[in-house]
Amino acid sequence: MSVVGQQFETELSELRNRINARLADYMEILEDCPSPLRESMAYSLLAGGKRLRPILVLLACEACGGSIEAALPAACAIEMIHTYSLIHDDLPAMDNDDYRRGRLTNHKVFGDGLAILAGDALLTLAFEVIARDTQPGSVAAACCIDLASASGWCGMVGGQVADLQAEQRLEKQNSSEQSIQKEFAAETAQNLYTLEAIHRRKTGRLLCSAVTLGARVAQADADSINRLQEYGKRVGLAFQIADDLLDVTGDAAKLGKKVGKDASLGKMTYPGLLGIEASRQKADHLIHEACDLLEPFGKRADSLIALAKFVTKRDH
Amino acid sequence: MSVVGQQFETELSELRNRINARLADYMEILEDCPSPLRESMAYSLLAGGKRLRPILVLLACEACGGSIEAALPAACAIEMIHTYSLIHDDLPAMDNDDYRRGRLTNHKVFGDGLAILAGDALLTLAFEVIARDTQPGSVAAACCIDLASASGWCGMVGGQVADLQAEQRLEKQNSSEQSIQKEFAAETAQNLYTLEAIHRRKTGRLLCSAVTLGARVAQADADSINRLQEYGKRVGLAFQIADDLLDVTGDAAKLGKKVGKDASLGKMTYPGLLGIEASRQKADHLIHEACDLLEPFGKRADSLIALAKFVTKRDH
Repeated sequence: MSVVGQQFETELSELRNRINARLADYMEILEDCPSPLRESMAYSLLAGGKRLRPILVLLACEACGGSIEAALPAACAIEMIHTYSLIHDDLPAMDNDDYRRGRLTNHKVFGDGLAILAGDALLTLAFEVIARDTQPGSVAAACCIDLASASGWCGMVGGQVADLQAEQRLEKQNSSEQSIQKEFAAETAQNLYTLEAIHRRKTGRLLCSAVTLGARVAQADADSINRLQEYGKRVGLAFQIADDLLDVTGDAAKLGKKVGKDASLGKMTYPGLLGIEASRQKADHLIHEACDLLEPFGKRADSLIALAKFVTKRDH
Repeated sequence: MSVVGQQFETELSELRNRINARLADYMEILEDCPSPLRESMAYSLLAGGKRLRPILVLLACEACGGSIEAALPAACAIEMIHTYSLIHDDLPAMDNDDYRRGRLTNHKVFGDGLAILAGDALLTLAFEVIARDTQPGSVAAACCIDLASASGWCGMVGGQVADLQAEQRLEKQNSSEQSIQKEFAAETAQNLYTLEAIHRRKTGRLLCSAVTLGARVAQADADSINRLQEYGKRVGLAFQIADDLLDVTGDAAKLGKKVGKDASLGKMTYPGLLGIEASRQKADHLIHEACDLLEPFGKRADSLIALAKFVTKRDH
């Protein structure tokens, strides 16, 4: 790894430590909280992970001339939102997953009822933290609006519903024996459109709101916010493509035959629709555009540029 | 009914109409929302009901010299929070109820997965609405803090967990054959303490935050906010006692024998612990205190006083 790469790894690790410490503080002060609820919330919130969203908040704030310290509440809030969504998505009524990051999922440890409530409490705490600990109040309110619209009906939750719908539609397509090549091509274009729309909502909006929150805390001007949002959209989509690619690198050869439809889990993926090479090119192109957008920020955006390259390059 | 009573009924009905119309507007503008999600959200949010919490927001704002119009976003937000909590509480993993207000519960119509997501989306929308539509931003942020702390881990969600825990404890007590009279009395005192603590969180905090929100929108002074909060606490508890009393008026005679333990559903209630007459007296006393607290507001608090009397006097 290059020296720059090593320096950036060290920076990331330091930011992650600050975020983890602050998240632990937020769990620590839930004194009067019924202990099973606190345990369930902390179990998932303090489970580690990349902390990509909060890191984006901090780096965006820095790129706009603000301080890491001022952006920490917003960074923690977005990680709380991300964590609640994982807890609820893992439930038997949704994706029904038993494991996440190598540990039992929340509901497997605490039961479905408590897992639902822990998710609700983390979602609510996110708004409490951002509204109370971000200054001044007008910035806090603007951050609440960003976070809510990125994570609610028109953002993450809406994307999750659209995802469930698309899976059902895809299952129907796959179970049909009558599809001919021409329909197949039209379906691929349609599916790619659907896939992008879902990702934009399900993961893209929240990643995009991360940089917006950082910029708001730094009280950045409209042009800076706009550039960071465009950067966020591209990095978010590239991140998703990289994630899809990682899922298939284990059996890449097999995937070649399946291009156009990844029916294994009834899920659409980029390599499944575009093929591996075209997916890689698409991700690279998005990252290139994202970095270009940050030119006016100069050296202050170096870390955001390093991060954009980082998310698509490594198995992490 | 007295003329004053009739006038107040008309006022309540007008307020309810304004709240229902604004809630419908908020559902209407979810244009880009996947239709099953919007339908599921609207199914529960527009199902009617007393609208007690939003009415308290509006009347508290009026009592502090603010306008109904300015308080409508906060009023709608608190109803969204209340509605999401009902959707999640009704789930099979929680109370497992098939009917609410005479209609099928959300998950019986839309499935468990969509019901969880509709609850999440309403919870998130509450903060979006209050942060975006309440002015100025500093007041919006203060309202977000109030609403989050009243509905999260130390409020409603915490109360729900404590409730689940107390039910499990009570089931243990009831299944034990060894309890003697002395232990029984100590248990009653302990249970009454637990019951009040649960209600304070589960319903009291949210009712209390309703009046706080109204006062904040009107930019009231600290003393007014404090008086309204003390009013809210008392009205909230009286409302719960009245609710418990309504549950048992059908078989009051039977209840007499069960005083000290209402084991039928493994739930603690006021008439179950105190008896019917003492419960009535307690509710009346709380309402009396609540009304006294509003004296400094003069005639502007007439509706809040009428409401306090109203919640304990009628079958509604």
